[in-house]
Amino acid sequence: MSGTLYGLGVGPGDPELLTLKAARLLAAVPVVAYPAPLQGDSLARTIAAPHLAPGVEEIALRMAFDPERRADEVYDAGAEAIAAHLAAGRDVAVLCEGDPFFFGSFAYLFARLGQRFPVQVVPGIASPMACAAVAGHPLTARDDALVVIPAPRPEAEIEQLLRAAEAAVIMKLGRHLPKVLRVLERLELTGCARYVERAGQPGQALLPLDEAARRGAPYFALILVHKRGKAWI
Amino acid sequence: MSGTLYGLGVGPGDPELLTLKAARLLAAVPVVAYPAPLQGDSLARTIAAPHLAPGVEEIALRMAFDPERRADEVYDAGAEAIAAHLAAGRDVAVLCEGDPFFFGSFAYLFARLGQRFPVQVVPGIASPMACAAVAGHPLTARDDALVVIPAPRPEAEIEQLLRAAEAAVIMKLGRHLPKVLRVLERLELTGCARYVERAGQPGQALLPLDEAARRGAPYFALILVHKRGKAWI
Repeated sequence: MSGTLYGLGVGPGDPELLTLKAARLLAAVPVVAYPAPLQGDSLARTIAAPHLAPGVEEIALRMAFDPERRADEVYDAGAEAIAAHLAAGRDVAVLCEGDPFFFGSFAYLFARLGQRFPVQVVPGIASPMACAAVAGHPLTARDDALVVIPAPRPEAEIEQLLRAAEAAVIMKLGRHLPKVLRVLERLELTGCARYVERAGQPGQALLPLDEAARRGAPYFALILVHKRGKAWI
Repeated sequence: MSGTLYGLGVGPGDPELLTLKAARLLAAVPVVAYPAPLQGDSLARTIAAPHLAPGVEEIALRMAFDPERRADEVYDAGAEAIAAHLAAGRDVAVLCEGDPFFFGSFAYLFARLGQRFPVQVVPGIASPMACAAVAGHPLTARDDALVVIPAPRPEAEIEQLLRAAEAAVIMKLGRHLPKVLRVLERLELTGCARYVERAGQPGQALLPLDEAARRGAPYFALILVHKRGKAWI
């Protein structure tokens, strides 16, 4: 009988924003896998570390950090290493920052293994909710529509998506921040936009847009927009 | 010195989908408040119950379940009861199904108390992520845009929002399900839509759209759409 592949959300970074279910499974599985930089620590592993069983086997999927380039070979090799454990009957938990099915790198492993093995996904706290808590402002209320927009999208598409709903989350800012700020200015939305970087991680910050523009945004930075501004309810 | 108002996400229903932070705070606060039906148990309190300190003071905000009617008087009275504890220096945790700032009823208390007292929000697992885990399909990958659409919105607006992005979550279905199904058929999206009700709660179900249409949807039901269907990555 084959093992189960767990897609385990570990939340945005704060080690307390892990679920009880994730903590229980982390202590129980014989094998964990996680994305990691070419050198140094994996954020997902760091969050999970206090809960791992002694002697757990670890598979680090090491890849250069380049969100705009796919790391197919790394996922191919990682999927095969994971498949070997599953085929031998050992459960494997893949650790995922945030939620596994919300822009998670788990999707790449799920695409390779989801048809071959039983899969269970344990949802995690996603970055929009973590950032709204830091910003101290609701994402949505009543019957608001919300759009989630990856900042690498073309400028015209970001504008069109922002026009479509009362509330928006613009993710993965990085080098795309100036483009996003141009759109917000054009739509006169800068007054109801909030910038948060590294929510729940060391270096967490809620910054004025102009200060973020001066300093530049990391990849793990979001802008939250609510068009009703202060009169949001 | 006044107490802190905690907006405490308790997740979608599964008692294990509570965060470690929520569990710690539940055991520490002297007062909890929660929405509840006019008679019977509060779902949020049921999720939190195993963690509550003995002798904790409880404030039930009892209201008729009618998502389309505001319960201003209940929130006014609840806010004053909570304010009295905060003013006396006692921390109060408001228990919220899902995430407090994502369509959470906490917003109504935050609007009344957020300027008067220190507030901390503890994010929780939100229903789209819980439902995606049940459906066994990613919400988003790569640079997908996602729209979150409350089903009470007018039919033409739902159609326009669905057209705007690759992925969608249509929430709060209830009696609006037939309208939503009409839009999905018109846009030829029924083949890439998944229906989930009561994720993480007793009675959780992943149903074919036509079966859901026959049985009728509860309020806590969602449809997840990904336009790339099975070729989602």
